[in-house]
Amino acid sequence: MRNIKLVFQYDGTFYSGWQVQPDKRTVQGVLTEKLSLILNERVAVYASSRTDSGAHALGQVVNFKTSSGITPGRLKTALNGLLPEDIAVIEAGPVPEDFHACYSAKKRLYRYKIRNASCRSPFDRLYTYHFPCPLDASRMRRAAGYIKGTRDFSAFKSSRGEKQNRVRTVSLLEITRESGHISIDVQADGFLTYMVRNIAGTLLETGRGRMEAEQVKSIVNSGDRKKAGPTLPARGLCLIKVEY
Amino acid sequence: MRNIKLVFQYDGTFYSGWQVQPDKRTVQGVLTEKLSLILNERVAVYASSRTDSGAHALGQVVNFKTSSGITPGRLKTALNGLLPEDIAVIEAGPVPEDFHACYSAKKRLYRYKIRNASCRSPFDRLYTYHFPCPLDASRMRRAAGYIKGTRDFSAFKSSRGEKQNRVRTVSLLEITRESGHISIDVQADGFLTYMVRNIAGTLLETGRGRMEAEQVKSIVNSGDRKKAGPTLPARGLCLIKVEY
Repeated sequence: MRNIKLVFQYDGTFYSGWQVQPDKRTVQGVLTEKLSLILNERVAVYASSRTDSGAHALGQVVNFKTSSGITPGRLKTALNGLLPEDIAVIEAGPVPEDFHACYSAKKRLYRYKIRNASCRSPFDRLYTYHFPCPLDASRMRRAAGYIKGTRDFSAFKSSRGEKQNRVRTVSLLEITRESGHISIDVQADGFLTYMVRNIAGTLLETGRGRMEAEQVKSIVNSGDRKKAGPTLPARGLCLIKVEY
Repeated sequence: MRNIKLVFQYDGTFYSGWQVQPDKRTVQGVLTEKLSLILNERVAVYASSRTDSGAHALGQVVNFKTSSGITPGRLKTALNGLLPEDIAVIEAGPVPEDFHACYSAKKRLYRYKIRNASCRSPFDRLYTYHFPCPLDASRMRRAAGYIKGTRDFSAFKSSRGEKQNRVRTVSLLEITRESGHISIDVQADGFLTYMVRNIAGTLLETGRGRMEAEQVKSIVNSGDRKKAGPTLPARGLCLIKVEY
Protein backbone atom coordinates (compact mmCIF):
# COMPACT_ATOMS: atom_id res chain seq x y z
CA MET A 1 0.00 0.00 0.00
CA ARG A 2 1.35 3.42 -1.00
CA ASN A 3 0.72 6.48 1.16
CA ILE A 4 -0.35 9.59 -0.82
CA LYS A 5 -0.57 13.18 0.37
CA LEU A 6 -2.81 15.81 -1.23
CA VAL A 7 -2.80 19.57 -0.68
CA PHE A 8 -6.06 21.20 -1.70
CA GLN A 9 -8.29 24.25 -1.44
CA TYR A 10 -11.98 24.65 -0.93
CA ASP A 11 -14.67 27.25 -0.62
CA GLY A 12 -16.59 25.76 2.29
CA THR A 13 -19.77 27.80 1.77
CA PHE A 14 -21.84 24.91 0.47
CA TYR A 15 -20.40 22.19 2.76
CA SER A 16 -21.24 21.08 6.28
CA GLY A 17 -17.55 21.23 7.15
CA TRP A 18 -14.83 18.66 6.56
CA GLN A 19 -16.01 15.60 8.45
CA VAL A 20 -18.43 13.03 7.02
CA GLN A 21 -21.90 13.23 8.58
CA PRO A 22 -25.03 11.29 7.66
CA ASP A 23 -27.20 13.04 5.02
CA LYS A 24 -24.90 16.08 4.80
CA ARG A 25 -22.62 17.27 2.02
CA THR A 26 -19.13 17.43 3.47
CA VAL A 27 -15.69 17.98 1.93
CA GLN A 28 -14.47 14.61 3.25
CA GLY A 29 -17.55 12.94 1.78
CA VAL A 30 -17.13 14.43 -1.69
CA LEU A 31 -13.35 13.89 -1.79
CA THR A 32 -13.63 10.27 -0.60
CA GLU A 33 -16.32 9.53 -3.17
CA LYS A 34 -14.26 10.88 -6.10
CA LEU A 35 -11.05 9.21 -4.89
CA SER A 36 -12.78 5.84 -4.52
CA LEU A 37 -14.20 6.24 -8.03
CA ILE A 38 -10.78 6.95 -9.57
CA LEU A 39 -8.87 4.33 -7.57
CA ASN A 40 -11.63 1.76 -7.84
CA GLU A 41 -11.31 0.87 -4.15
CA ARG A 42 -12.56 2.17 -0.84
CA VAL A 43 -10.19 4.69 0.71
CA ALA A 44 -10.01 6.27 4.16
CA VAL A 45 -8.95 9.93 3.97
CA TYR A 46 -7.34 11.68 6.97
CA ALA A 47 -7.14 15.48 7.14
CA SER A 48 -4.78 17.76 9.04
CA SER A 49 -7.77 19.61 10.53
CA ARG A 50 -11.52 19.11 10.59
CA THR A 51 -12.66 22.53 9.40
CA ASP A 52 -16.03 23.89 10.57
CA SER A 53 -19.19 24.05 8.50
CA GLY A 54 -18.82 27.05 6.15
CA ALA A 55 -15.08 27.54 6.82
CA HIS A 56 -12.59 27.54 3.94
CA ALA A 57 -9.13 26.17 3.13
CA LEU A 58 -6.24 27.42 1.01
CA GLY A 59 -3.89 24.62 2.08
CA GLN A 60 -5.74 21.68 3.61
CA VAL A 61 -3.64 18.48 3.71
CA VAL A 62 -4.88 14.89 3.63
CA ASN A 63 -3.33 11.47 3.26
CA PHE A 64 -4.71 8.08 2.29
CA LYS A 65 -3.37 4.62 1.49
CA THR A 66 -3.99 2.92 -1.81
CA SER A 67 -3.02 -0.24 -3.67
CA SER A 68 -3.48 1.55 -7.00
CA GLY A 69 -0.41 2.25 -9.15
CA ILE A 70 -1.69 5.58 -10.51
CA THR A 71 0.94 8.36 -10.60
CA PRO A 72 0.25 11.33 -8.29
CA GLY A 73 0.25 13.67 -11.31
CA ARG A 74 -2.48 11.70 -13.07
CA LEU A 75 -4.43 11.36 -9.85
CA LYS A 76 -4.38 15.15 -9.40
CA THR A 77 -5.63 15.70 -12.97
CA ALA A 78 -8.35 13.06 -12.62
CA LEU A 79 -9.49 14.47 -9.28
CA ASN A 80 -9.66 18.06 -10.56
CA GLY A 81 -11.72 16.76 -13.47
CA LEU A 82 -14.24 15.05 -11.18
CA LEU A 83 -14.37 17.39 -8.18
CA PRO A 84 -16.86 20.26 -8.11
CA GLU A 85 -15.51 23.75 -8.88
CA ASP A 86 -15.36 24.72 -5.21
CA ILE A 87 -12.66 22.12 -4.43
CA ALA A 88 -9.26 22.10 -6.19
CA VAL A 89 -6.25 19.82 -5.64
CA ILE A 90 -3.02 21.81 -5.94
CA GLU A 91 -0.47 19.13 -5.00
CA ALA A 92 -0.29 15.33 -4.93
CA GLY A 93 2.70 13.23 -4.01
CA PRO A 94 3.96 10.08 -2.26
CA VAL A 95 4.85 10.24 1.45
CA PRO A 96 6.54 7.76 3.83
CA GLU A 97 4.32 5.00 5.21
CA ASP A 98 4.13 6.57 8.68
CA PHE A 99 3.06 10.03 7.49
CA HIS A 100 -0.35 11.00 8.90
CA ALA A 101 -1.89 14.34 7.82
CA CYS A 102 -3.20 15.00 11.32
CA TYR A 103 -0.73 13.37 13.74
CA SER A 104 2.42 14.32 11.78
CA ALA A 105 1.43 18.01 11.56
CA LYS A 106 3.67 20.35 13.57
CA LYS A 107 1.90 23.68 13.01
CA ARG A 108 -1.37 24.87 11.50
CA LEU A 109 -1.94 28.43 10.33
CA TYR A 110 -5.48 29.82 10.23
CA ARG A 111 -6.61 33.26 9.12
CA TYR A 112 -9.76 34.96 10.38
CA LYS A 113 -10.79 37.82 8.10
CA ILE A 114 -13.02 40.71 9.18
CA ARG A 115 -14.42 43.22 6.68
CA ASN A 116 -14.14 46.42 8.70
CA ALA A 117 -15.92 49.00 6.54
CA SER A 118 -19.27 50.71 6.91
CA CYS A 119 -20.69 49.08 3.78
CA ARG A 120 -20.87 45.34 3.24
CA SER A 121 -19.50 43.86 0.01
CA PRO A 122 -21.30 41.28 -2.16
CA PHE A 123 -17.89 39.89 -3.18
CA ASP A 124 -16.60 39.53 0.38
CA ARG A 125 -19.76 38.09 1.85
CA LEU A 126 -18.75 34.42 1.71
CA TYR A 127 -15.17 34.92 2.90
CA THR A 128 -15.26 37.55 5.64
CA TYR A 129 -17.25 38.56 8.70
CA HIS A 130 -18.61 42.08 8.24
CA PHE A 131 -18.17 44.40 11.20
CA PRO A 132 -19.18 47.99 10.26
CA CYS A 133 -17.99 49.94 13.35
CA PRO A 134 -14.38 51.12 13.85
CA LEU A 135 -11.87 48.59 15.22
CA ASP A 136 -8.64 49.66 16.90
CA ALA A 137 -5.98 47.26 15.58
CA SER A 138 -3.36 48.39 18.10
CA ARG A 139 -5.67 47.45 21.02
CA MET A 140 -6.24 44.08 19.36
CA ARG A 141 -2.46 43.57 19.06
CA ARG A 142 -1.97 44.38 22.75
CA ALA A 143 -4.64 41.83 23.69
CA ALA A 144 -3.08 39.27 21.33
CA GLY A 145 0.13 39.49 23.38
CA TYR A 146 -1.72 37.88 26.33
CA ILE A 147 -3.00 35.01 24.19
CA LYS A 148 0.24 33.98 22.47
CA GLY A 149 2.40 31.30 24.07
CA THR A 150 2.00 27.87 25.65
CA ARG A 151 -1.01 27.76 27.96
CA ASP A 152 -4.33 26.17 28.77
CA PHE A 153 -6.84 27.54 26.24
CA SER A 154 -10.01 26.52 28.10
CA ALA A 155 -11.27 30.13 27.87
CA PHE A 156 -11.45 29.69 24.10
CA LYS A 157 -12.90 26.17 23.90
CA SER A 158 -16.30 25.43 22.40
CA SER A 159 -19.14 25.76 24.88
CA ARG A 160 -19.97 22.09 24.34
CA GLY A 161 -16.77 21.40 26.21
CA GLU A 162 -13.91 19.09 25.43
CA LYS A 163 -12.49 16.81 28.06
CA GLN A 164 -9.01 16.33 26.69
CA ASN A 165 -5.87 18.29 27.53
CA ARG A 166 -6.42 21.92 26.52
CA VAL A 167 -2.81 23.10 26.54
CA ARG A 168 -1.68 24.40 23.14
CA THR A 169 1.18 26.56 21.86
CA VAL A 170 0.12 29.59 19.85
CA SER A 171 3.40 30.51 18.15
CA LEU A 172 2.05 33.38 16.06
CA LEU A 173 -0.90 35.75 16.51
CA GLU A 174 -0.73 38.65 14.07
CA ILE A 175 -3.26 41.37 13.34
CA THR A 176 -2.98 43.10 9.96
CA ARG A 177 -5.09 45.94 8.61
CA GLU A 178 -5.28 46.30 4.84
CA SER A 179 -7.79 48.20 2.67
CA GLY A 180 -10.89 47.82 4.81
CA HIS A 181 -10.02 44.39 6.20
CA ILE A 182 -8.52 43.14 9.43
CA SER A 183 -6.85 39.75 9.24
CA ILE A 184 -6.06 37.71 12.34
CA ASP A 185 -3.39 35.08 11.65
CA VAL A 186 -3.14 32.36 14.28
CA GLN A 187 -0.55 29.60 14.15
CA ALA A 188 -0.44 26.81 16.71
CA ASP A 189 0.56 23.20 17.15
CA GLY A 190 -3.12 22.39 17.40
CA PHE A 191 -6.49 23.99 18.07
CA LEU A 192 -9.51 23.28 20.25
CA THR A 193 -12.91 23.29 18.50
CA TYR A 194 -13.90 26.93 17.65
CA MET A 195 -10.65 28.20 19.25
CA VAL A 196 -9.71 30.54 16.36
CA ARG A 197 -13.27 31.89 16.07
CA ASN A 198 -13.38 32.44 19.85
CA ILE A 199 -10.00 34.19 19.88
CA ALA A 200 -11.19 36.36 16.95
CA GLY A 201 -14.41 37.19 18.83
CA THR A 202 -12.44 38.20 21.93
CA LEU A 203 -10.03 40.37 19.92
CA LEU A 204 -13.05 41.98 18.22
CA GLU A 205 -14.45 42.93 21.65
CA THR A 206 -11.17 44.64 22.55
CA GLY A 207 -10.88 46.29 19.11
CA ARG A 208 -14.34 47.85 19.41
CA GLY A 209 -13.65 49.07 22.94
CA ARG A 210 -15.96 46.77 24.88
CA MET A 211 -13.10 44.97 26.59
CA GLU A 212 -9.72 46.22 27.83
CA ALA A 213 -6.65 44.56 26.32
CA GLU A 214 -5.44 43.84 29.88
CA GLN A 215 -8.75 42.13 30.68
CA VAL A 216 -7.86 39.46 28.12
CA LYS A 217 -4.97 38.41 30.36
CA SER A 218 -7.32 37.54 33.23
CA ILE A 219 -9.79 35.87 30.84
CA VAL A 220 -7.05 33.59 29.53
CA ASN A 221 -5.92 32.81 33.10
CA SER A 222 -9.48 32.16 34.31
CA GLY A 223 -10.02 29.41 31.73
CA ASP A 224 -13.66 30.48 31.76
CA ARG A 225 -15.27 30.34 28.29
CA LYS A 226 -18.14 32.57 29.45
CA LYS A 227 -15.79 35.51 30.08
CA ALA A 228 -14.32 35.51 26.55
CA GLY A 229 -15.91 37.07 23.45
CA PRO A 230 -18.44 35.49 21.08
CA THR A 231 -17.71 32.77 18.51
CA LEU A 232 -17.45 34.63 15.19
CA PRO A 233 -19.12 33.07 12.10
CA ALA A 234 -17.22 30.35 10.21
CA ARG A 235 -17.34 32.20 6.88
CA GLY A 236 -14.40 34.42 7.95
CA LEU A 237 -12.18 31.42 8.75
CA CYS A 238 -9.64 29.86 6.39
CA LEU A 239 -7.02 27.14 6.95
CA ILE A 240 -3.98 28.68 5.24
CA LYS A 241 -1.10 26.23 5.71
CA VAL A 242 0.00 23.11 7.57
CA GLU A 243 3.64 22.49 8.43
CA TYR A 244 5.18 19.03 8.91
CA MET B 1 -41.60 63.68 -7.96
CA ARG B 2 -37.95 63.54 -6.88
CA ASN B 3 -35.37 61.78 -9.02
CA ILE B 4 -33.00 59.54 -7.02
CA LYS B 5 -29.77 57.91 -8.17
CA LEU B 6 -28.28 54.79 -6.59
CA VAL B 7 -24.82 53.30 -7.09
CA PHE B 8 -24.65 49.66 -6.10
CA GLN B 9 -22.73 46.40 -6.37
CA TYR B 10 -23.83 42.85 -6.95
CA ASP B 11 -22.51 39.37 -7.27
CA GLY B 12 -24.60 38.24 -10.26
CA THR B 13 -24.01 34.50 -9.76
CA PHE B 14 -27.50 33.73 -8.55
CA TYR B 15 -29.37 36.16 -10.82
CA SER B 16 -30.66 35.88 -14.39
CA GLY B 17 -29.04 39.22 -15.17
CA TRP B 18 -30.31 42.75 -14.57
CA GLN B 19 -33.55 42.89 -16.51
CA VAL B 20 -36.88 41.67 -15.15
CA GLN B 21 -38.04 38.43 -16.77
CA PRO B 22 -41.09 36.33 -15.93
CA ASP B 23 -40.40 33.61 -13.32
CA LYS B 24 -36.71 34.49 -13.02
CA ARG B 25 -34.77 36.08 -10.19
CA THR B 26 -33.21 39.25 -11.58
CA VAL B 27 -31.37 42.16 -9.96
CA GLN B 28 -33.93 44.63 -11.28
CA GLY B 29 -36.74 42.47 -9.91
CA VAL B 30 -35.25 42.21 -6.41
CA LEU B 31 -34.25 45.89 -6.25
CA THR B 32 -37.66 47.10 -7.48
CA GLU B 33 -39.45 44.88 -4.97
CA LYS B 34 -37.45 46.20 -2.00
CA LEU B 35 -37.68 49.83 -3.15
CA SER B 36 -41.46 49.60 -3.60
CA LEU B 37 -41.72 48.09 -0.12
CA ILE B 38 -39.73 50.91 1.50
CA LEU B 39 -41.34 53.75 -0.49
CA ASN B 40 -44.81 52.25 -0.29
CA GLU B 41 -45.42 52.95 -3.99
CA ARG B 42 -44.66 51.31 -7.31
CA VAL B 43 -41.36 52.50 -8.77
CA ALA B 44 -39.78 52.07 -12.20
CA VAL B 45 -36.02 51.57 -11.96
CA TYR B 46 -33.72 52.40 -14.91
CA ALA B 47 -30.15 51.07 -15.04
CA SER B 48 -27.08 52.34 -16.87
CA SER B 49 -26.55 48.88 -18.38
CA ARG B 50 -28.51 45.65 -18.54
CA THR B 51 -25.86 43.23 -17.31
CA ASP B 52 -25.92 39.59 -18.52
CA SER B 53 -27.07 36.61 -16.51
CA GLY B 54 -24.21 35.72 -14.14
CA ALA B 55 -22.26 38.96 -14.72
CA HIS B 56 -21.32 41.22 -11.80
CA ALA B 57 -21.23 44.92 -10.95
CA LEU B 58 -18.97 47.04 -8.75
CA GLY B 59 -20.58 50.32 -9.79
CA GLN B 60 -23.99 49.84 -11.41
CA VAL B 61 -26.07 53.03 -11.50
CA VAL B 62 -29.86 53.33 -11.49
CA ASN B 63 -32.38 56.11 -11.12
CA PHE B 64 -36.07 56.19 -10.21
CA LYS B 65 -38.70 58.80 -9.43
CA THR B 66 -40.57 58.86 -6.16
CA SER B 67 -43.10 60.98 -4.33
CA SER B 68 -41.72 59.78 -0.99
CA GLY B 69 -39.89 62.30 1.21
CA ILE B 70 -37.37 59.77 2.60
CA THR B 71 -33.78 61.08 2.77
CA PRO B 72 -31.29 59.30 0.48
CA GLY B 73 -29.20 58.32 3.53
CA ARG B 74 -32.12 56.58 5.22
CA LEU B 75 -33.15 54.98 1.95
CA LYS B 76 -29.64 53.51 1.55
CA THR B 77 -29.71 52.10 5.10
CA ALA B 78 -33.20 50.68 4.66
CA LEU B 79 -32.31 49.10 1.32
CA ASN B 80 -29.12 47.50 2.64
CA GLY B 81 -31.17 46.08 5.49
CA LEU B 82 -33.71 44.49 3.14
CA LEU B 83 -31.56 43.48 0.16
CA PRO B 84 -29.93 40.05 0.07
CA GLU B 85 -26.21 39.87 0.90
CA ASP B 86 -25.19 39.69 -2.75
CA ILE B 87 -26.49 43.21 -3.51
CA ALA B 88 -25.19 46.30 -1.68
CA VAL B 89 -26.06 49.97 -2.20
CA ILE B 90 -22.95 52.15 -1.81
CA GLU B 91 -24.37 55.57 -2.73
CA ALA B 92 -27.78 57.23 -2.85
CA GLY B 93 -28.49 60.83 -3.73
CA PRO B 94 -30.83 63.28 -5.48
CA VAL B 95 -30.27 64.07 -9.18
CA PRO B 96 -31.84 66.64 -11.55
CA GLU B 97 -35.21 65.73 -12.99
CA ASP B 98 -33.79 64.98 -16.45
CA PHE B 99 -31.06 62.60 -15.25
CA HIS B 100 -31.51 59.09 -16.71
CA ALA B 101 -29.09 56.33 -15.64
CA CYS B 102 -28.93 54.94 -19.17
CA TYR B 103 -29.41 57.87 -21.53
CA SER B 104 -27.33 60.35 -19.50
CA ALA B 105 -24.33 57.98 -19.27
CA LYS B 106 -21.26 59.12 -21.19
CA LYS B 107 -18.92 56.16 -20.63
CA ARG B 108 -19.17 52.68 -19.18
CA LEU B 109 -16.16 50.73 -17.97
CA TYR B 110 -16.29 46.92 -17.93
CA ARG B 111 -13.60 44.49 -16.78
CA TYR B 112 -13.29 40.94 -18.09
CA LYS B 113 -11.12 38.83 -15.79
CA ILE B 114 -9.34 35.65 -16.86
CA ARG B 115 -7.64 33.34 -14.38
CA ASN B 116 -4.56 32.34 -16.35
CA ALA B 117 -2.95 29.65 -14.19
CA SER B 118 -2.70 25.90 -14.61
CA CYS B 119 -4.82 25.19 -11.53
CA ARG B 120 -8.34 26.51 -11.05
CA SER B 121 -9.20 28.30 -7.81
CA PRO B 122 -12.33 27.65 -5.71
CA PHE B 123 -12.26 31.31 -4.64
CA ASP B 124 -12.01 32.71 -8.17
CA ARG B 125 -14.58 30.40 -9.71
CA LEU B 126 -17.52 32.79 -9.59
CA TYR B 127 -15.62 35.90 -10.70
CA THR B 128 -13.19 34.80 -13.42
CA TYR B 129 -13.01 32.61 -16.52
CA HIS B 130 -10.34 29.97 -16.03
CA PHE B 131 -7.97 29.50 -18.96
CA PRO B 132 -5.09 27.13 -17.98
CA CYS B 133 -2.77 27.49 -21.03
CA PRO B 134 -0.24 30.33 -21.46
CA LEU B 135 -1.53 33.66 -22.80
CA ASP B 136 0.76 36.22 -24.41
CA ALA B 137 -0.41 39.60 -23.08
CA SER B 138 1.72 41.59 -25.54
CA ARG B 139 0.01 39.88 -28.51
CA MET B 140 -3.35 40.68 -26.89
CA ARG B 141 -2.31 44.33 -26.52
CA ARG B 142 -1.31 44.50 -30.19
CA ALA B 143 -4.70 43.09 -31.22
CA ALA B 144 -6.46 45.52 -28.88
CA GLY B 145 -4.94 48.39 -30.87
CA TYR B 146 -7.11 47.37 -33.85
CA ILE B 147 -10.29 47.32 -31.75
CA LYS B 148 -9.97 50.69 -30.02
CA GLY B 149 -11.55 53.74 -31.60
CA THR B 150 -14.83 54.77 -33.21
CA ARG B 151 -16.09 52.09 -35.60
CA ASP B 152 -18.88 49.69 -36.49
CA PHE B 153 -18.64 46.81 -33.98
CA SER B 154 -20.80 44.33 -35.92
CA ALA B 155 -18.00 41.73 -35.67
CA PHE B 156 -18.53 41.68 -31.89
CA LYS B 157 -22.33 41.76 -31.77
CA SER B 158 -24.39 38.91 -30.35
CA SER B 159 -25.20 36.21 -32.88
CA ARG B 160 -28.91 36.92 -32.40
CA GLY B 161 -28.20 40.15 -34.21
CA GLU B 162 -29.19 43.68 -33.44
CA LYS B 163 -30.66 45.94 -36.06
CA GLN B 164 -29.76 49.31 -34.61
CA ASN B 165 -26.70 51.40 -35.35
CA ARG B 166 -23.61 49.43 -34.32
CA VAL B 167 -21.08 52.27 -34.26
CA ARG B 168 -19.51 52.73 -30.83
CA THR B 169 -16.42 54.48 -29.47
CA VAL B 170 -14.09 52.27 -27.45
CA SER B 171 -11.99 54.89 -25.67
CA LEU B 172 -9.94 52.48 -23.57
CA LEU B 173 -8.91 48.84 -24.03
CA GLU B 174 -6.24 47.81 -21.55
CA ILE B 175 -4.77 44.39 -20.84
CA THR B 176 -3.14 43.93 -17.44
CA ARG B 177 -1.40 40.83 -16.10
CA GLU B 178 -1.21 40.46 -12.32
CA SER B 179 -0.51 37.38 -10.18
CA GLY B 180 -2.07 34.72 -12.36
CA HIS B 181 -4.82 36.90 -13.79
CA ILE B 182 -5.31 38.81 -17.01
CA SER B 183 -7.76 41.70 -16.84
CA ILE B 184 -9.25 43.27 -19.95
CA ASP B 185 -10.61 46.76 -19.23
CA VAL B 186 -12.96 48.10 -21.89
CA GLN B 187 -14.44 51.57 -21.75
CA ALA B 188 -16.92 52.83 -24.35
CA ASP B 189 -19.84 55.19 -24.80
CA GLY B 190 -22.04 52.13 -25.15
CA PHE B 191 -21.90 48.41 -25.86
CA LEU B 192 -23.72 45.96 -28.10
CA THR B 193 -25.08 42.83 -26.42
CA TYR B 194 -22.17 40.46 -25.55
CA MET B 195 -19.69 42.94 -27.05
CA VAL B 196 -17.22 42.84 -24.13
CA ARG B 197 -17.40 39.04 -23.89
CA ASN B 198 -16.85 38.76 -27.66
CA ILE B 199 -13.90 41.16 -27.61
CA ALA B 200 -12.45 39.18 -24.68
CA GLY B 201 -12.93 35.91 -26.61
CA THR B 202 -11.16 37.35 -29.65
CA LEU B 203 -8.26 38.68 -27.58
CA LEU B 204 -8.01 35.25 -25.91
CA GLU B 205 -7.63 33.63 -29.35
CA THR B 206 -4.74 35.96 -30.16
CA GLY B 207 -3.17 35.53 -26.72
CA ARG B 208 -3.13 31.76 -27.05
CA GLY B 209 -1.65 31.96 -30.56
CA ARG B 210 -4.65 30.77 -32.57
CA MET B 211 -5.13 34.13 -34.23
CA GLU B 212 -2.62 36.73 -35.39
CA ALA B 213 -2.93 40.20 -33.85
CA GLU B 214 -3.05 41.64 -37.41
CA GLN B 215 -5.93 39.30 -38.27
CA VAL B 216 -8.06 41.13 -35.73
CA LYS B 217 -7.83 44.23 -37.93
CA SER B 218 -9.52 42.47 -40.86
CA ILE B 219 -12.07 40.83 -38.54
CA VAL B 220 -13.10 44.22 -37.21
CA ASN B 221 -13.31 45.63 -40.75
CA SER B 222 -15.29 42.65 -42.05
CA GLY B 223 -18.06 43.20 -39.52
CA ASP B 224 -18.53 39.43 -39.59
CA ARG B 225 -19.37 37.98 -36.17
CA LYS B 226 -18.43 34.46 -37.35
CA LYS B 227 -14.80 35.45 -37.89
CA ALA B 228 -14.28 36.77 -34.35
CA GLY B 229 -13.54 34.64 -31.25
CA PRO B 230 -16.05 32.92 -28.95
CA THR B 231 -18.31 34.65 -26.40
CA LEU B 232 -16.56 34.10 -23.05
CA PRO B 233 -18.71 33.13 -20.02
CA ALA B 234 -20.49 35.93 -18.13
CA ARG B 235 -18.90 35.05 -14.78
CA GLY B 236 -15.67 36.87 -15.76
CA LEU B 237 -17.52 40.10 -16.55
CA CYS B 238 -17.98 43.03 -14.17
CA LEU B 239 -19.41 46.52 -14.70
CA ILE B 240 -16.84 48.68 -12.91
CA LYS B 241 -17.90 52.30 -13.36
CA VAL B 242 -20.28 54.58 -15.25
CA GLU B 243 -19.40 58.18 -16.05
CA TYR B 244 -21.97 60.95 -16.53
